[in-house]
Amino acid sequence: MHRRHLLAGGAAAIGGTAVGWGTRGLRSEETSPAAVAAGEAVTGGETEPFHGVHQAGVVTPPQAHTSLLGLDLVDGAGTEDLTRMMRLLSDDAARLTSGTGALADTEPELAVSPARLTVTFGFGPRVLRMLRPAFDPGLQELPAFSLDRLDPAWGQTDVLVQVCAEDPVTVAHARRMLLKDASPFATTRWVQEGFRRARGTERAGTTMRNLMGQVDGTVNLPVEDHARLLWSEGAAAAFDGGTFLVLRRIEMDMVDWDRTDRVAREFTVGRRLSDGAPLTGDAEFDEPDFEATDAVGFPVIDPASHVARSRSENTDERFLRRAYNYAMPTGESGLLFVAYAADVERQFVPVQQRLDELDLLNEWVTTIGSAVYAVPPGCVEGDFVGREMLNLPPPTAAEQAGAGNRTGGRA
Amino acid sequence: MHRRHLLAGGAAAIGGTAVGWGTRGLRSEETSPAAVAAGEAVTGGETEPFHGVHQAGVVTPPQAHTSLLGLDLVDGAGTEDLTRMMRLLSDDAARLTSGTGALADTEPELAVSPARLTVTFGFGPRVLRMLRPAFDPGLQELPAFSLDRLDPAWGQTDVLVQVCAEDPVTVAHARRMLLKDASPFATTRWVQEGFRRARGTERAGTTMRNLMGQVDGTVNLPVEDHARLLWSEGAAAAFDGGTFLVLRRIEMDMVDWDRTDRVAREFTVGRRLSDGAPLTGDAEFDEPDFEATDAVGFPVIDPASHVARSRSENTDERFLRRAYNYAMPTGESGLLFVAYAADVERQFVPVQQRLDELDLLNEWVTTIGSAVYAVPPGCVEGDFVGREMLNLPPPTAAEQAGAGNRTGGRA
Ligand code: HEM
Ligand code: HEM
Repeated sequence: MHRRHLLAGGAAAIGGTAVGWGTRGLRSEETSPAAVAAGEAVTGGETEPFHGVHQAGVVTPPQAHTSLLGLDLVDGAGTEDLTRMMRLLSDDAARLTSGTGALADTEPELAVSPARLTVTFGFGPRVLRMLRPAFDPGLQELPAFSLDRLDPAWGQTDVLVQVCAEDPVTVAHARRMLLKDASPFATTRWVQEGFRRARGTERAGTTMRNLMGQVDGTVNLPVEDHARLLWSEGAAAAFDGGTFLVLRRIEMDMVDWDRTDRVAREFTVGRRLSDGAPLTGDAEFDEPDFEATDAVGFPVIDPASHVARSRSENTDERFLRRAYNYAMPTGESGLLFVAYAADVERQFVPVQQRLDELDLLNEWVTTIGSAVYAVPPGCVEGDFVGREMLNLPPPTAAEQAGAGNRTGGRA
Repeated sequence: MHRRHLLAGGAAAIGGTAVGWGTRGLRSEETSPAAVAAGEAVTGGETEPFHGVHQAGVVTPPQAHTSLLGLDLVDGAGTEDLTRMMRLLSDDAARLTSGTGALADTEPELAVSPARLTVTFGFGPRVLRMLRPAFDPGLQELPAFSLDRLDPAWGQTDVLVQVCAEDPVTVAHARRMLLKDASPFATTRWVQEGFRRARGTERAGTTMRNLMGQVDGTVNLPVEDHARLLWSEGAAAAFDGGTFLVLRRIEMDMVDWDRTDRVAREFTVGRRLSDGAPLTGDAEFDEPDFEATDAVGFPVIDPASHVARSRSENTDERFLRRAYNYAMPTGESGLLFVAYAADVERQFVPVQQRLDELDLLNEWVTTIGSAVYAVPPGCVEGDFVGREMLNLPPPTAAEQAGAGNRTGGRA
C-alpha cells in the first residue's frame, strides 16, 4: 500500500501530463535534477577541422570513443582504385567532421552532431610497396617480438581509418558511411572499438586510466618535439607532414592482476595507483628519481618496472601515445595502444624491444594484434588525403573552389 | 618546407614545455579551444540513488551507455545461492552507484565517477518457477511471434543485470565487478551493449534517434500512468513496486533501408524523419491525426504504418519504452528494445501481436533475441533486491545500520 502512496505523492507533486523524460520537460519521480538540467552546455556541435597541414586525430586531444577500421584492398585493386577510394573517403570525412553528413548521406539526421569527430587515414606496408618506386617514405614492418602472441584476426591491413568522437552515435554513423563508400574498393578485416572517459565525466585534461586502473599517458611527447619526432620531414617529399602509426592490441590478464596486491602493482609500473605519481615523488608530473633507494638500499623504482624500461636515455626513442581501452562483451579487455612517430624503426622499435626483453608488466599483458601504417600529411579543401603519395597533380582551382572530391572521384 | 614552417609557427605561438594534452594545460596545435576548456562542468560525480521503492534504471532518464548482462544460474543452484548472489550484487550496486567502489574493489580508482550509474536486476521465468508456490507474480513467457527469427545466443536467461551510465569506463568497470561477484553462482550467457547520444551532445531531453535515423521515443508512458501500468500492485504482495521487463533484440536491414527513399521511410513510420512530427502535424509532440486524408482521399498516416499499428484504442495496452541502439563491430546494427510494464500479457503482448500481423516497418526489422524478466521492487539501505520475493525476513536493525549486505551474504 505504501508504495502506491509514495508514488501517487510523487506524481502529484510533479503533476501534468509528462511523457516520462521527453522534451515536455517533466521528470519522472526518481530523476536527479541535474540529469535533465536545461541550461547545460551542448557540445555536440564542436568540430575538429579536417583540413590542415597534418591530418586531425593525431595531436587532437583524445575523444571518448574510437573505432579503428582495418581495410584490405580488393584483389587486383591498384593505385587508381586507391585514388578513387581516398577521394571519396576524404570527401566523406570533410563533410562528416563538419556536421553536414556525407554526400547522399542515407541518415543525415545522425550527422548533425560532429562532437569533435576526426577521421584519420593510414596506408599499410602492402600499399606503400604498391606506390614504389615513385614514393617511399621508408616504413618498415615491425620485427618479431618474442612475447607477442599475434592473432591474424587483428593483424596488418592495407588501410587504416581511425574514427574518433565524443559521441558513440556519431562514431557509429561515420563508421557506417565510410565503410559503405569504401566497400567497392576494400573489405573490412576488423573493427577495433575503444573508449576513454566520456566528455565531462572528469575535469578536462585529466590523464586517462587504463582498465588495470593505472594513470596512463602522463609522460608523452612534448609539443616542442613534434617537429623533430612526430611529423615526417625529408624522408620523402610527398610525406612531409605525415607520420607513422603503430597499433598494438594488448590484452590484459585481469584475473591474475586482480590477485596481485597494490604494493606489487605499483612496483610493477613504478608509479602510484592513486594518482600516478612516481614512487619517488608526490604528484603525477613529478620527475621519477631512478637513483633513489629505500632503507635497505634497493632502488625505489625497480629497474625492471615499466616506467624504467620504457624510458630511454636516447631522446630520439620517443613517440606520441594515444591509447584507448577496450572491453569485449565476451570479457577480454586491454589497451588499443596507438603510437605515432616520424620514424618507427628509430623511435619505437628500440623501446618495444627493450620492453620485450624485460618489463615487470609483461606478466599481465600480451600483445595479440600488431600493425603499422603511414599516415599521409593532411590536405587542403578540395584535395584528398594521400594525393601527393599517389603522385597526382594538385587539385585544380575549380576543384578547390568547391566542385569537391566526390565529382572528381566519380569522373 | 612550408609544413615545418607552419608547424614551428604554431608551436611557438603556444610555447612552453607542454606534453601534448595533459593537465599541464597546454594544447597541441590543432585543438579546438572548447575541447580542453577549463571551466567546463564536471558531471561524473552525479549519482542516481540505488535504494528506493522501485529499482533505479526504469524511470531514470536513459544514460548514454548500457550493458545488459544475461546470466544463468549454475547447475543445481537453488534459492539459497540466489539469495547469496543477490546480497552480494545489491551491495556492489549500492556502492558502485554511489561512486565508492565495490567492497574489495580490485580497481577502486575506476569507481570514483558513478556518472549516473544504475544497476537494475531482473529474474527470468525459470527463477520465478523456482520461487513458486511461495511467490508467483504471474510472469508469462512471450508467445511465439511469426516474424521472430530468434537466435538462442540472445535468448532468455535466468537473471538480467541492466547496467547504465553516462560513461563507458564506469559501465565497463561496474560490469566486471558484478560479473566477478556473480561468477560463483551464475555464468554469463550474453552481454548486450547499447548506446545513445553522449551526455551533452544534444540539448537535455532531446528524444533519441535510432540508427534508422528516426526520432524514437516521442510517445511514451505518461507519469500519471506509472502507478497503474508500470509498477505492479496486488499481483503478489512481495512484488508490489516491481515491474516486468521485455527485451527484444531487433536487427535492422540497413542495406535495404538505405535503398528506400525518404518519402517511403516516413510513410513506413507515419512520422517525419527531420523532426519526428506526425505526417499530419508540425512538431514532434503534435497528436497524429489518423483521420486526415490527402488530395486523392488516402489517409496521410497509413493504417499499416508503425505509429498506427503500435498505438491502441485500449489504454491498457501501453508500456514504458527505454531502448538503446546497438552496432556490432561486425556491421550488424539495430535496437535493444526494452519495455517495462506491470502486466506483460495484458499490456505488451497485444501490441507485439498486432505489429507481428502488420507493420510496414517489418520489411526492415527482425527480432533475433527475446527475453522477459520480473524486476523486483527496490530495497532500502542494508537490504537487497529480491528479498521479499525470496520469502526472507526483512533486514535486522543491525543490518540496516550498516553491517551491510556483504557480511550478511558471506555468513
Ligand atoms: C597494456 C599495455 C601497457 C600498459 C598497461 C601501460 C601502462 C603505462 C603506464 C601506467 C605508464 C606510466 C604513466 C605514463 O607516463 O603514461 C606508462 C608509461 C609509458 N609507456 Fe606504457 N603501457 C603499456 C604498453 C606500452 C607499450 C607497448 C609501450 C611502447 C612500446 C609503452 C611505452 C610507454 C612509455 C614510453 C611510457 C612513458 C615512460 C616515461 O618516459 O616515463 N607502453 N605505460
Ligand atoms: C527496430 C524496431 C523498432 C523501431 C525502429 C521503432 C521505431 C519507432 C518510432 C520511430 C516511433 C515513433 C516515435 C515515438 O513515438 O517513439 C515508434 C513508436 C512506437 N513504437 Fe516502435 N519501433 C520499433 C519496435 C517496436 C516494438 C517491438 C514495439 C512494441 C511491441 C514498439 C512500440 C511502439 C509504440 C507503442 C510506439 C508509440 C506509438 C504511439 O502511441 O504513438 N515499437 N517506434
